[in-house]
Amino acid sequence: MKQTYLKNGYIVTMAEDGETVYDGGGVLIEDDKIKAVGKIDPKMVAPDAEVIELNGRYVLPGFVNTHVHTSQQISRGVGDDVDFVTWLHKRMWPFESNMTEEDSYMSTLATCLELIRSGVTSFAEPGGQFVSGMCRATAESGLRGKLAKSVMDCGDGLPPIWQRTMEEELEQQVADLEKYHNTADGRVQVWFGLRTIFNNTDELCVRTKELADKYGVGIHMHVAEAKEEKAYTYERWGEGTVKHLEKLGVLGPNLLAVHTVWLTDEEIGLFKKHDVKVSHNPASAMRVLGFARIPKMLKEGICLSIGTDGASSSNHMDMVDEMWLTSLIHKGWRLDPTVVPSQDILRMATRWGARAVLEGSLYGSLEAGKKADLIVINPHGPSMMPVNDKIAALVTAMHSSNIESTMCDGKWLMRDRKILTLDEEAILKEGAERAAAIYRRAGIELPDRFPVVKVEND
Amino acid sequence: MKQTYLKNGYIVTMAEDGETVYDGGGVLIEDDKIKAVGKIDPKMVAPDAEVIELNGRYVLPGFVNTHVHTSQQISRGVGDDVDFVTWLHKRMWPFESNMTEEDSYMSTLATCLELIRSGVTSFAEPGGQFVSGMCRATAESGLRGKLAKSVMDCGDGLPPIWQRTMEEELEQQVADLEKYHNTADGRVQVWFGLRTIFNNTDELCVRTKELADKYGVGIHMHVAEAKEEKAYTYERWGEGTVKHLEKLGVLGPNLLAVHTVWLTDEEIGLFKKHDVKVSHNPASAMRVLGFARIPKMLKEGICLSIGTDGASSSNHMDMVDEMWLTSLIHKGWRLDPTVVPSQDILRMATRWGARAVLEGSLYGSLEAGKKADLIVINPHGPSMMPVNDKIAALVTAMHSSNIESTMCDGKWLMRDRKILTLDEEAILKEGAERAAAIYRRAGIELPDRFPVVKVEND
Repeated sequence: MKQTYLKNGYIVTMAEDGETVYDGGGVLIEDDKIKAVGKIDPKMVAPDAEVIELNGRYVLPGFVNTHVHTSQQISRGVGDDVDFVTWLHKRMWPFESNMTEEDSYMSTLATCLELIRSGVTSFAEPGGQFVSGMCRATAESGLRGKLAKSVMDCGDGLPPIWQRTMEEELEQQVADLEKYHNTADGRVQVWFGLRTIFNNTDELCVRTKELADKYGVGIHMHVAEAKEEKAYTYERWGEGTVKHLEKLGVLGPNLLAVHTVWLTDEEIGLFKKHDVKVSHNPASAMRVLGFARIPKMLKEGICLSIGTDGASSSNHMDMVDEMWLTSLIHKGWRLDPTVVPSQDILRMATRWGARAVLEGSLYGSLEAGKKADLIVINPHGPSMMPVNDKIAALVTAMHSSNIESTMCDGKWLMRDRKILTLDEEAILKEGAERAAAIYRRAGIELPDRFPVVKVEND
Repeated sequence: MKQTYLKNGYIVTMAEDGETVYDGGGVLIEDDKIKAVGKIDPKMVAPDAEVIELNGRYVLPGFVNTHVHTSQQISRGVGDDVDFVTWLHKRMWPFESNMTEEDSYMSTLATCLELIRSGVTSFAEPGGQFVSGMCRATAESGLRGKLAKSVMDCGDGLPPIWQRTMEEELEQQVADLEKYHNTADGRVQVWFGLRTIFNNTDELCVRTKELADKYGVGIHMHVAEAKEEKAYTYERWGEGTVKHLEKLGVLGPNLLAVHTVWLTDEEIGLFKKHDVKVSHNPASAMRVLGFARIPKMLKEGICLSIGTDGASSSNHMDMVDEMWLTSLIHKGWRLDPTVVPSQDILRMATRWGARAVLEGSLYGSLEAGKKADLIVINPHGPSMMPVNDKIAALVTAMHSSNIESTMCDGKWLMRDRKILTLDEEAILKEGAERAAAIYRRAGIELPDRFPVVKVEND
């Protein structure tokens, strides 16, 4: 039995029951769980507890990143400023289809570094090709992950290596799930994946839902993502992706629908009715997709969360940056600075995020009995001070560099900005080498943006 | 004569003549100027030159922030998530009108810390009330500033202390200019200010233009900022702010027009015709104003630059964040990921920014004979690596924490993330105390966003 006592902090509990903030309060952790929050009874603190003086620093629940392509981390920058077809066919598919299982492992490790540094303790992965590699890396990082394969059983122009049958895809996922689900003290879990309506047959969608229900896990799917998807589904079925999925019986509380930019009012109503979870990814939405109707979905009470997407489409795998973007773009779009207030953004990044990955009872808020997944934030410095509005500052002024320490499952993954679970330098080095090798194998060449002259100076 | 030799870097010159990048190149600095760039002739390097090995780090021209309210820095968070009228009448005006000259000085010092840390070497200030305080702080910081008073001679509901006549406002500005212009080795300059068309009479606009031309300085003005401004000018004159300013003869190369969200095609044409300079402020635009037509203005060849606005309206006084936003929001707005590419954003932040503040021949690019205003960028770390697209990464992946060192006028203002010109801790402390005192004097109370319980733990 090991206790850690964080004392004299600004404890932002995000607890469903009242969302109390304890100014000057503490958090007492025992093993992997939170034992007490707020005013701590000294009798509960063991004599050998590690006591950490916070001097007014914030403590928050760890952020939940509900959509991050860990296999894309080392492809970062592969398609900046290019059109969608170039991005997909000449950059992204060649890159990803030339990755090995070991590449995927290393890319996931590199992602975990950035996630830990930006205060994430739990994430959902929508699918590289190698769930095994992603699971190994997640286990080593100390984070929690819900990992899925990028599943495709149809679609035009796919690289040959990805042309697989529905049966192959389902079998692979069941095998991965039986091997890796609930490993690493339960931190590593395997979900089912559906890439997009372009790349998944109706039968696959239906079978996936049956299997996800059978195993009691979630389905991670890109839904109503691009304008082109809307055109495709309306031409084919005379309706949007969500309406179509409803007819197939796929909508349900265990569907995590990502992006969800092109929704009708009726489809937002269907999300509400079936308790579908939404992952909003503002940076990648801005890059190419458009504006998800977040103010409307908030009003309707949809369970909203935030994701970073992958480094090939949004570059920052940083939940703090995504929170800031979420606070800006909808105000600008609606010309109303009151929409999507900071409190809702913090909910999306914590408690609602946990609900979105089906773990609302396990983490996402600081409450006795919940998992000790939390972060310590130090606002000191010229980019956040003075802190006049303590809660809004977490969204409107904070940078991930203000996140000092990250704890997951009762263990420190980062303390005072030093990563404790992974060898950061070795991963960065090998990640860069593997990225260069994949570019070579895939024949991807990025044009110089300015003329480059190679120089040698003594 | 003092030399500094930065060697073996990735030198992004941004020079008008070709924008060459020197991979493995150097920058030789002598006193306040750049002596050579690229392949450095060893004979030019003095025996006692300080030699700094860059190991491949980037060198870029220092960023030019063309719109930053330094007097608002310590008000940060004063109006997050509130409507425009509340923001202006109940928060911003009470705060600013309760500031003293010493508050303004301290707020400017606090801004300078954040500017230096985010790679800025030159900025334009649109106006607090105390040019003297802002000038003193800028001089001490080592930065370059173009400082203006926030000038108002009409408008409804202004605090009594701000109800001043045109003559008073012009006299004050001339007095400030004669006292402070071109002080601190020329780093500190005084410009004329026009707050907005709501708060400035036609005669003031005309007289300001005459005086700015006479003194050879610029005019800093918020132009076509909000939807309400458009409604106001159309009701009054049947045309937009820009058309009206043209009739008054105010448009010209020395007008720095900020925000410029609500422009017609004709008005964009007038900007081109008169070589008016534009400052784009994406974060504050998203907060409340709307989308400036940056893709169109780029196409038309308008001189575009980037500003952060003030901490009361956009919270991040961080040019790196603003570059990232600039790269995202227009793509999302136009649903075209090819618009506003990274190269243009770097131009806006450097060479074009220098042109916008009428210093295109003095800084904004790394060229022999120009001022030694530059930054050293270290991409090492999980948020920027791997760097597959070296130029785009500066816009799409970099954070200000990657900026390692900042030099202005040949002097290091920050080295290895340590501020050398200012006492950072003392400024942060006094800034926070002064902010709290102004809140009290102004009677501003921010409601708690969550219930706060005060706790005492032993």
